[in-house]
Amino acid sequence: MISIDELAVFCKKKGFVYPSSDIYGGIAGFWDFGPLGVELLNNIRAGWWKYFVQSREDIVGMDGSIISNPKIWKASGHLESFQDIVLTCSKCKTKLRADHFIDEKLDINVEGMSILDLNKIIKKNNLKCPKCSSNLKELKGFNLLFKTHVGAEEDSASAAYLRGETAQGMFTDFRLIAETSRQKLPFGIAQIGKCFRNEISPRDFLFRSREFTIAELEFFVHPKQKKCPYLIKKCRDIKLFFLDAEAQENGKKAYKEKTIGGLLKEKRLDEWHAYWLAEQILWFRTLGLDMKKLKIREHTKNELSHYSSATFDIDFEYPFGSKEVAGIANRGIYDLTQHMKESGKSMELYDEETKSKIIPRAIEPTFGMERVFLAVLVDAYNDDKKRGNIVLKLNPKLAPIAVGVFPLVNKLDGKSREIFDILKTDFSCTFDRGGSIGRRYARADEQGIPFCVTIDFDTLEDNAVTIRDRDTTKQIRVKIDELEKTITKLIHGIK
Amino acid sequence: MISIDELAVFCKKKGFVYPSSDIYGGIAGFWDFGPLGVELLNNIRAGWWKYFVQSREDIVGMDGSIISNPKIWKASGHLESFQDIVLTCSKCKTKLRADHFIDEKLDINVEGMSILDLNKIIKKNNLKCPKCSSNLKELKGFNLLFKTHVGAEEDSASAAYLRGETAQGMFTDFRLIAETSRQKLPFGIAQIGKCFRNEISPRDFLFRSREFTIAELEFFVHPKQKKCPYLIKKCRDIKLFFLDAEAQENGKKAYKEKTIGGLLKEKRLDEWHAYWLAEQILWFRTLGLDMKKLKIREHTKNELSHYSSATFDIDFEYPFGSKEVAGIANRGIYDLTQHMKESGKSMELYDEETKSKIIPRAIEPTFGMERVFLAVLVDAYNDDKKRGNIVLKLNPKLAPIAVGVFPLVNKLDGKSREIFDILKTDFSCTFDRGGSIGRRYARADEQGIPFCVTIDFDTLEDNAVTIRDRDTTKQIRVKIDELEKTITKLIHGIK
Repeated sequence: MISIDELAVFCKKKGFVYPSSDIYGGIAGFWDFGPLGVELLNNIRAGWWKYFVQSREDIVGMDGSIISNPKIWKASGHLESFQDIVLTCSKCKTKLRADHFIDEKLDINVEGMSILDLNKIIKKNNLKCPKCSSNLKELKGFNLLFKTHVGAEEDSASAAYLRGETAQGMFTDFRLIAETSRQKLPFGIAQIGKCFRNEISPRDFLFRSREFTIAELEFFVHPKQKKCPYLIKKCRDIKLFFLDAEAQENGKKAYKEKTIGGLLKEKRLDEWHAYWLAEQILWFRTLGLDMKKLKIREHTKNELSHYSSATFDIDFEYPFGSKEVAGIANRGIYDLTQHMKESGKSMELYDEETKSKIIPRAIEPTFGMERVFLAVLVDAYNDDKKRGNIVLKLNPKLAPIAVGVFPLVNKLDGKSREIFDILKTDFSCTFDRGGSIGRRYARADEQGIPFCVTIDFDTLEDNAVTIRDRDTTKQIRVKIDELEKTITKLIHGIK
Repeated sequence: MISIDELAVFCKKKGFVYPSSDIYGGIAGFWDFGPLGVELLNNIRAGWWKYFVQSREDIVGMDGSIISNPKIWKASGHLESFQDIVLTCSKCKTKLRADHFIDEKLDINVEGMSILDLNKIIKKNNLKCPKCSSNLKELKGFNLLFKTHVGAEEDSASAAYLRGETAQGMFTDFRLIAETSRQKLPFGIAQIGKCFRNEISPRDFLFRSREFTIAELEFFVHPKQKKCPYLIKKCRDIKLFFLDAEAQENGKKAYKEKTIGGLLKEKRLDEWHAYWLAEQILWFRTLGLDMKKLKIREHTKNELSHYSSATFDIDFEYPFGSKEVAGIANRGIYDLTQHMKESGKSMELYDEETKSKIIPRAIEPTFGMERVFLAVLVDAYNDDKKRGNIVLKLNPKLAPIAVGVFPLVNKLDGKSREIFDILKTDFSCTFDRGGSIGRRYARADEQGIPFCVTIDFDTLEDNAVTIRDRDTTKQIRVKIDELEKTITKLIHGIK
């Protein structure tokens, strides 16, 4: 597998992702998407929105502001609990994230441990600064929310925060949306948007950055509705590699093959939680990802966020290990209850059946969109030694450019332009007349263009062109009249 | 015309736009898009991207980070010049934006005036605090960039800013993009993204907010290429209502009808500037906006931004006056030169013809996407007294919901579901079985749904349904087999 550093170099070279502010030496944890990257990210986003929002009647979308009233973050618990534990070297002042440092040095998962416990581990194992080998002194909580000031005064009254998650928008607007969209339980609210976390040590390219995009939904269910009618056999039969909490607490890391139905029987999740986990897996399938690289990891009790009663990570096999690409938490009634307390506004819905007011509980499937983007690239990247170039085997539905149009020689530009103009209304196309056909195919391979159309001298006689398949390099000859239909079928994998 | 406050109420009620953090009393200058609003905004964005990026070979997209290296804002001049002049009351400490306050009180356009000049105007006219009538004392520049800190220390070394415009991303990544996308001059880089400005007094609903979305492109041209081959007759003949700088300097506000060709002859802009102004107008036409509400205003010399040698505002007739919805600036070589100086990195391209290095100049068409959204809503809003409800006459291509499917009575649910399932793969649809058909039509009118399909008892016999047109209320009967084709034609206005 390609290393993450090599992938970052490839992404920069091809125009997928650049370090932000590159001419100024960059800024750690921030990235820019280039011409190919923005199209790939947009295609992933659009597919997500179509799948989870537009094709469903019971989910509506929203797009909330990044800066909001700071009381939201007090109510949600983020001002108090959304923190990393930071270690500072007593001598060189190097700062380290305690959990990552201990995990790397000792292979212990310390997520959720208290500062006291972490301190014990550091002392017991006599851990030193990795830079200057001096003692590590200060252990303190560091809040991950970026702070700013709104208005003309810089004081505590004007302090505000960049959102650290999109979820709070769905909770604070819950009543407004329930009323204006006339949805009845169960229903969901979805959002895709930028979030910010002031990570101590951003790393692994796009994986742990300080500015990133979350796509998630809060699915609200009547607290007494235990059965999920959508949890059909197709969902229950989904197979997955699963690591349970007990195994991790016993220091084991062996994944077992289970089904979603099996997890239900073990009572690791409820029906609604199981259903949404299934939908997450089904969406990953639409991306054409290698499903063997996905693994499900149950959070241990220590590790659970302050708002969740059960959480599963969906991990992907990245070059730097199997790490979270998506997750699903059972947030229960935590957030709506907190906002009700803090704002004094009702978050209850009227239950026509029982004639009483209820607070729905929330299941939250979440996706890190840059992490999905990264998984797609890692999965697609092939160093084809035989061809002598990289072949980026992107799903044709996601590829930034679907079709390359190449005149064999410059003389054929006119005819090629005609064909290009026909194709570009339906597909994202590029016109390339630079260099030999072989060189152009190689370039197309590296950009992940699934189909290249070549116009040659025979075209002028037989009104046909060649379509070359990126993955097999096989070529077929197709009449120009049938070109659009053929490419549509090829993109959607229809025989 | 509806007042802006009434429109805000309508938007909240229907789920287009909510005040951010509404349950906490909101936060001035921040808004959330609800279920209908997010779809409308997304449709406007997608149309813009298709028009300016995907359908052109000479423009590529990017998506840069919101937080970047602060040296960018030093180089761009924003840390020094991106400020409002703030007036503070000596007694009650009320803060006012000096330019707006003087404009409202005295009807003087003071944009670009120095603090000294503003002070003279205030003294000469004896302006007092509008709240407590005390003297206005302090006049000071207030930088509009939101500040935060990146990393674990809050000191000047860690200070960073939320971007106040998207443009700098296109300038700082210019060389990387030119190289990786293999574009040759003239070519453009486009971006749509969130920007932040710490406005002293946000107002007029979405119009002047603190968090908003800019869609813009930097089109780079060889400094010696004066002719624009795309400036065809269709562009030159575009008519517009135009207010020139001289008239404004003489205190006049009379717009004159001119053509883009006419402005060229008057040497108010160059050919590339004229071409991109034409493209902006042509894009506004695709939205179906009432083009009589658009006006072009030339910036006066005082008013020009620090980076521009010529700027035109494209104003729209909002309920609160004719105000900027888009703009086009001639940024020249200002930005690339500044970044070259500040970073020490070359921003030059090699010119094969003259065998020398050149810095291209940039033309910048910009759109405030929430302002476009607002213009679309203002234009669509009709209080139909005869029908007794609001009719939101949104362009069918932009409407958040394209088709409503209504069973006449509950008994017809089964057949209606079948039809709904056919339509929902191609169109954004809603299924509504609540209340009388009249009530459902009224609701659809208010949501801007252009076409409603009603299934009645005859449907079971003749396999046909009724399509009702939102704007005319006329109904046509269509066979179910031809429903998709008919609706597609209706949406795209094909007879």
